[in-house]
Amino acid sequence: MKDFKPEIKESSEWLSKIGADPTGGMTRLLYTPEWIDAQLALKKAFDTAGLTTSRDAVGNLFGRLTGSKYPDKVILTGSHIDTVVNGGNLDGQFGIEASFMAIKYLKETYGAPLRTLEVVSLAEEEGSRFPYVFWGSKNIVGSAKAEDVRDICDADCVNFVDAMHAAGFHFRPESEPVRSDIAAFVELHIEQGKVLETEGKNIGVVTSIVGQRRYDIRLKGEANHAGTTPMSYRKDTVYAFSRICYESIEKARAEGDPLVLTFGKVEPKPNTVNVVPGFTHFTIDCRHTDKATLVRFTKEIEADIQRIAGEMGITAEIDLWMDEDPIPMDKQLVACLSHLCEANKANYRLMHSGAGHDSQIFAPRVPTVMIFVPSINGISHNPAEKTNQADLDEGVRMLAHTLYQLAYTEQGGNI
Amino acid sequence: MKDFKPEIKESSEWLSKIGADPTGGMTRLLYTPEWIDAQLALKKAFDTAGLTTSRDAVGNLFGRLTGSKYPDKVILTGSHIDTVVNGGNLDGQFGIEASFMAIKYLKETYGAPLRTLEVVSLAEEEGSRFPYVFWGSKNIVGSAKAEDVRDICDADCVNFVDAMHAAGFHFRPESEPVRSDIAAFVELHIEQGKVLETEGKNIGVVTSIVGQRRYDIRLKGEANHAGTTPMSYRKDTVYAFSRICYESIEKARAEGDPLVLTFGKVEPKPNTVNVVPGFTHFTIDCRHTDKATLVRFTKEIEADIQRIAGEMGITAEIDLWMDEDPIPMDKQLVACLSHLCEANKANYRLMHSGAGHDSQIFAPRVPTVMIFVPSINGISHNPAEKTNQADLDEGVRMLAHTLYQLAYTEQGGNI
Repeated sequence: MKDFKPEIKESSEWLSKIGADPTGGMTRLLYTPEWIDAQLALKKAFDTAGLTTSRDAVGNLFGRLTGSKYPDKVILTGSHIDTVVNGGNLDGQFGIEASFMAIKYLKETYGAPLRTLEVVSLAEEEGSRFPYVFWGSKNIVGSAKAEDVRDICDADCVNFVDAMHAAGFHFRPESEPVRSDIAAFVELHIEQGKVLETEGKNIGVVTSIVGQRRYDIRLKGEANHAGTTPMSYRKDTVYAFSRICYESIEKARAEGDPLVLTFGKVEPKPNTVNVVPGFTHFTIDCRHTDKATLVRFTKEIEADIQRIAGEMGITAEIDLWMDEDPIPMDKQLVACLSHLCEANKANYRLMHSGAGHDSQIFAPRVPTVMIFVPSINGISHNPAEKTNQADLDEGVRMLAHTLYQLAYTEQGGNI
Repeated sequence: MKDFKPEIKESSEWLSKIGADPTGGMTRLLYTPEWIDAQLALKKAFDTAGLTTSRDAVGNLFGRLTGSKYPDKVILTGSHIDTVVNGGNLDGQFGIEASFMAIKYLKETYGAPLRTLEVVSLAEEEGSRFPYVFWGSKNIVGSAKAEDVRDICDADCVNFVDAMHAAGFHFRPESEPVRSDIAAFVELHIEQGKVLETEGKNIGVVTSIVGQRRYDIRLKGEANHAGTTPMSYRKDTVYAFSRICYESIEKARAEGDPLVLTFGKVEPKPNTVNVVPGFTHFTIDCRHTDKATLVRFTKEIEADIQRIAGEMGITAEIDLWMDEDPIPMDKQLVACLSHLCEANKANYRLMHSGAGHDSQIFAPRVPTVMIFVPSINGISHNPAEKTNQADLDEGVRMLAHTLYQLAYTEQGGNI
């Protein structure tokens, strides 16, 4: 297969100009001028490449290469065009570029596929402008609800619906049926972690996306003078927090991979050197690929928190505000992709995704698989986000192999 | 002895009006109009009571009842007139009112003392306006240095020296000798803790003021994605903090009273739910009445921090920015006061002070003792600061007994 490196470089330089900021990062938020420009530039590129372009009501962009034998079986591939504020130029964007490059290559090399190939530039995934995530993919599978965005605003108090209308888009009409022609979804994305790098692998075949449970915990004890209050009189919420955090992480480490547990935010009050903190707010983020394990482990932590707080005369308010199930990728597609990696001598491994992706919206409805390429030092959501050119190239090639298998062979990866 | 309760109530209502804020609290910062008004009001009251008033260069106010036999032996008594921002109406102020009431009572009842009695309203103790503490007492004993305040400013960028000059005061001329006539200092203060309340005592005879060591600790690890970073890859500074805090407080509890250890401030970065915190800043405040124990214990904690951080691949920067020795009160005065408590059937106990007081500035130079009265629920530095009227009364009476013993008897408490 061809060397995509020159095209990857050229494509990235071209698309990264739209929404570039002076720090070398990218800011391309949903329905902003940069976002509109990027979708228009991609549309033009898709047109020029001979793909049939279309946009749906909310602004997802499609470039279609119609299948000669099974035109109504669509192999959809792509990622999201939006970025976080001051993000890098790979997260989302590279998946679209790679899908486009792979389809162009297949078209030029093999002509029309048996099944239809479609590249998609999804409208939104990050939730960076409005407090809502997966707006693009959720509209394609029909799970987005108008009432969930009707009253939300961005940091400048611009309403979601007003921003959508100003950009020339609108809600999907309820009378319009949800697409039923998607036979598979394939997404290439950077890992955003350093498992591949650490293990010296170039490709990750994603078997599942972790489930997540997030908590806000509020400990209420008693604020006291740090000098005049003997240790036995205290209801010190930072002491309680420290025991909860230490014992929970020890327990998580004993549980082992793929469980991860993070105490990312800690906010004592009054948060000053000479007062025993009478109140502490902290967060817990726990992820696992297995729902039963995730629920069992977090319920144990909840019980531990109540027990430790109780022993210290402290009250604990536990608020579970995010509870997302793990999403397995399609077994047939994982097997197909693994087989292709082996056949093409790719240095790959099976792995789960610890971060959320559009694929988790597609996976419950259509056979879905993800391909990961390494992130240097695991950095993402940062202008320093980077992947070796050789790894990007390997990613595009494995994507092209996969799309060939799905769209150009009669068997179609057994999906 | 007389019942001081009506006078305590009247005096508090009168003086608390100066610097009162709408929340029921007090804000009377050094060299502000409220501070000037309070010192002028006290001066007028001292004058009216027949005391000889004077103010030193920096604004300490004295009311003198000259001794008939040993006029150059001064029994000094009082506390500080400044408050914290939105403080209560007992911390500092009550000690001045009590000293004034006791001297007035002694004068009315017994006439002139053998030794001179002086009430002092100290200019500043809290460090609430400028980053400097004990400005009042340090100027009396000659340990205040002009260079330490010359370049400091308040929150509105007003320079210390400008504020002092604007209030009509100036540095103590270097040619002026430090007072050598102070034979004893006696300070009545609220406990600011709840040891007395918990043990059902009305009077605390202070044997020493704790030494304090305060630290800023900065842990540097690695910020990582909370989902994509396996536990074994992490350099999680909140995990390191939690182990340090938990193990240190367990160790402090095992060490036992009077050691106290507080982790009052914790500030992780970026302090968000889904990022492993790569940096954490926290403080340690450790106090003990014995210097050797304080130093040995904190050095153990320093070593523990380095060991725990090292085991986790984290670097720890340890900054010891406050290192104050414990200050014992005068043994003779403690014995004298204890004896008076017993003779007058006061429900008292010997105890240390966990908070700093002007007495620690006097104690290394002149025989000094403190009397504590209980603080309801241990609350201080807060508008809710309160002490039962009966306890305030008992405090004034024990102070009057002490001043009588020191100023009116030939033996003078053996000092």
